Amino acid sequence: MTTTSHAYGAQGADQALAPLRITRRAPGAHDVQIAIAYCGVCHSDLHQVRAEWAGTLYPCVPGHEIVGRVTAVGAQVSGFAPGDLVGVGCIVDSCRHCAECEDGLENYCNHMVGTYNGPTPDAPGHTLGGYSQQIVVHQRYVLRVRHPEAQLAAVAPLLCAGITTYSPLRHWKVGPGHKVGVVGIGGLGHMGIKLARAMGAQVVAFTTSPSKRDAALALGAHEVVVSRNREEMKAHAQSLDFILNTVAAPHELDAFLALLRRDGTMALVGAPATPHPSPNVFNLIMKRRSLAGSLIGGIAETQEMLDFCAERSIVADIEMIRADQIDDAYERMLTGDVKYRFVIDCASLGQ
Amino acid sequence: MTTTSHAYGAQGADQALAPLRITRRAPGAHDVQIAIAYCGVCHSDLHQVRAEWAGTLYPCVPGHEIVGRVTAVGAQVSGFAPGDLVGVGCIVDSCRHCAECEDGLENYCNHMVGTYNGPTPDAPGHTLGGYSQQIVVHQRYVLRVRHPEAQLAAVAPLLCAGITTYSPLRHWKVGPGHKVGVVGIGGLGHMGIKLARAMGAQVVAFTTSPSKRDAALALGAHEVVVSRNREEMKAHAQSLDFILNTVAAPHELDAFLALLRRDGTMALVGAPATPHPSPNVFNLIMKRRSLAGSLIGGIAETQEMLDFCAERSIVADIEMIRADQIDDAYERMLTGDVKYRFVIDCASLGQ
Repeated sequence: MTTTSHAYGAQGADQALAPLRITRRAPGAHDVQIAIAYCGVCHSDLHQVRAEWAGTLYPCVPGHEIVGRVTAVGAQVSGFAPGDLVGVGCIVDSCRHCAECEDGLENYCNHMVGTYNGPTPDAPGHTLGGYSQQIVVHQRYVLRVRHPEAQLAAVAPLLCAGITTYSPLRHWKVGPGHKVGVVGIGGLGHMGIKLARAMGAQVVAFTTSPSKRDAALALGAHEVVVSRNREEMKAHAQSLDFILNTVAAPHELDAFLALLRRDGTMALVGAPATPHPSPNVFNLIMKRRSLAGSLIGGIAETQEMLDFCAERSIVADIEMIRADQIDDAYERMLTGDVKYRFVIDCASLGQ
Repeated sequence: MTTTSHAYGAQGADQALAPLRITRRAPGAHDVQIAIAYCGVCHSDLHQVRAEWAGTLYPCVPGHEIVGRVTAVGAQVSGFAPGDLVGVGCIVDSCRHCAECEDGLENYCNHMVGTYNGPTPDAPGHTLGGYSQQIVVHQRYVLRVRHPEAQLAAVAPLLCAGITTYSPLRHWKVGPGHKVGVVGIGGLGHMGIKLARAMGAQVVAFTTSPSKRDAALALGAHEVVVSRNREEMKAHAQSLDFILNTVAAPHELDAFLALLRRDGTMALVGAPATPHPSPNVFNLIMKRRSLAGSLIGGIAETQEMLDFCAERSIVADIEMIRADQIDDAYERMLTGDVKYRFVIDCASLGQ
């Protein structure tokens, strides 16, 4: 039997977020039903709900940094039981048989279904996300949370900001002896700094804001470079093994490519609304450098990341908000006024 | 004692190439003196001699696809003796102690000295290249040619076009089971097709000219795609493991990035005079693709490439010219009217 849930969403691109009631399917044999405790606020939520990306379907309920407690499981579910602390990230379904799915990289499946705005047979025909009090997800896409419950709210952003930075750091084998750059100190970047540091790398944080220097050091950066300062940048020329670039705003990639050693890679995890200035091919050729991209991470890798963080007591730095503060939070997010992730207390959704 | 040599070069950016006499240093203890038999004509020669790149020094004697016979060796030279068939490529010196030099990747040394227009204590203060009858090179940068002498002229282009395509194919581990794209069927591209085929890959050649279809198949491509044909391109979407892009003219990189599988790389070996249109970051992010660059290859790798080619009787397809045809050859090269590399018969330099 379907259930109804309090949620927060928009009925159109020009409308503010408002309370609404949504239905969730009855748990099928492989489904896990979850009472959502907290949901992180990602910049993608804002893009989607305001139709800044093509194809937003309404009503739109964003949210893909979900943590909560299992309330029911289907007959075929193994590994999850009512009462368990769990998480759901950006992915709630995929084709399950392509090479990507078989390799545990559902994030690169051509039929990956996003946690919101993705196709589903459930009403209303597209997925509705975590700005709600309940969700039903196939067990394959549910993650176990091993952090203590007291950290639960701060775990939520790991489901997107955490895995989006963890995956490229792991894929490009960041570890001890590596000097790694993290560009941008926001929701993603602050996790990138913590994770790269925890992996044993020497971490250099890059920011346009001198005022973020102390904060970046506190997050774990060994060094902070103001990227508008040419001399500071020059001091790191040809010295970085890897750069995790979390900045979605269009910017000069060349300034960072020039900081990579031979065979170094800069991975972009943000996609700009308008193109970056075209990179100078000489910067790639002269040191066999690579400019790459990375999208979230696979389900198995997300579990690995959550366990990695639980073992080290790593969580996001968050600011908790009530549902009726979401629009304000969006505005503050646009000006970078958040350290470093808003998280919705989903108990406030029904109030 | 210095020796004099017939050569062909330019006295200024606006001057045609003309005969001149140059001096070469007496072979030092580690030097190999070489009578040049043939020298390939690379597009870089034209850029340099016409000052299309910054910093051309005159007189400018281009040429870095050099083959010939050893005429004398210094007291400390081991491994080369008068009479040996040898080659010299794009590199005649480097710092010899940086990480790149120690790794045998002198091509990425910050102090790599090009075969022409590079700094040298020899007169006139910059290196003079292979459009000449003699050259003296430190043994570290001299390659052994194991092809039969009858193939010598066609070996010359391996020293730049060959290694520039071989190195990225090897670095990105192209081999059996891989589907590899080669973009552009010119001096570099024709070697890329031959080498990728010899490495066991399935080779797809991309060209804007339908008229090159048969020629590309003859070079070893399994399939030829006219890159202006959207349907033909679409048929290869997400299917290529690696793309070797040899085209220096600015073009849409996105059309090719979209053809890469997850984790695929497109390596650029040509640098455009004006930037390519900025690539769409989504094309990198959605499949964790990389856009990379590669510059020539190291000395050890160049020897490996020459031996690989000698074992398989691989040479370049060439058109032999006399020295007084070089300017005409440049004009034909600019219109793509060469299959696929001009090679100067250096005996004609003194005539």
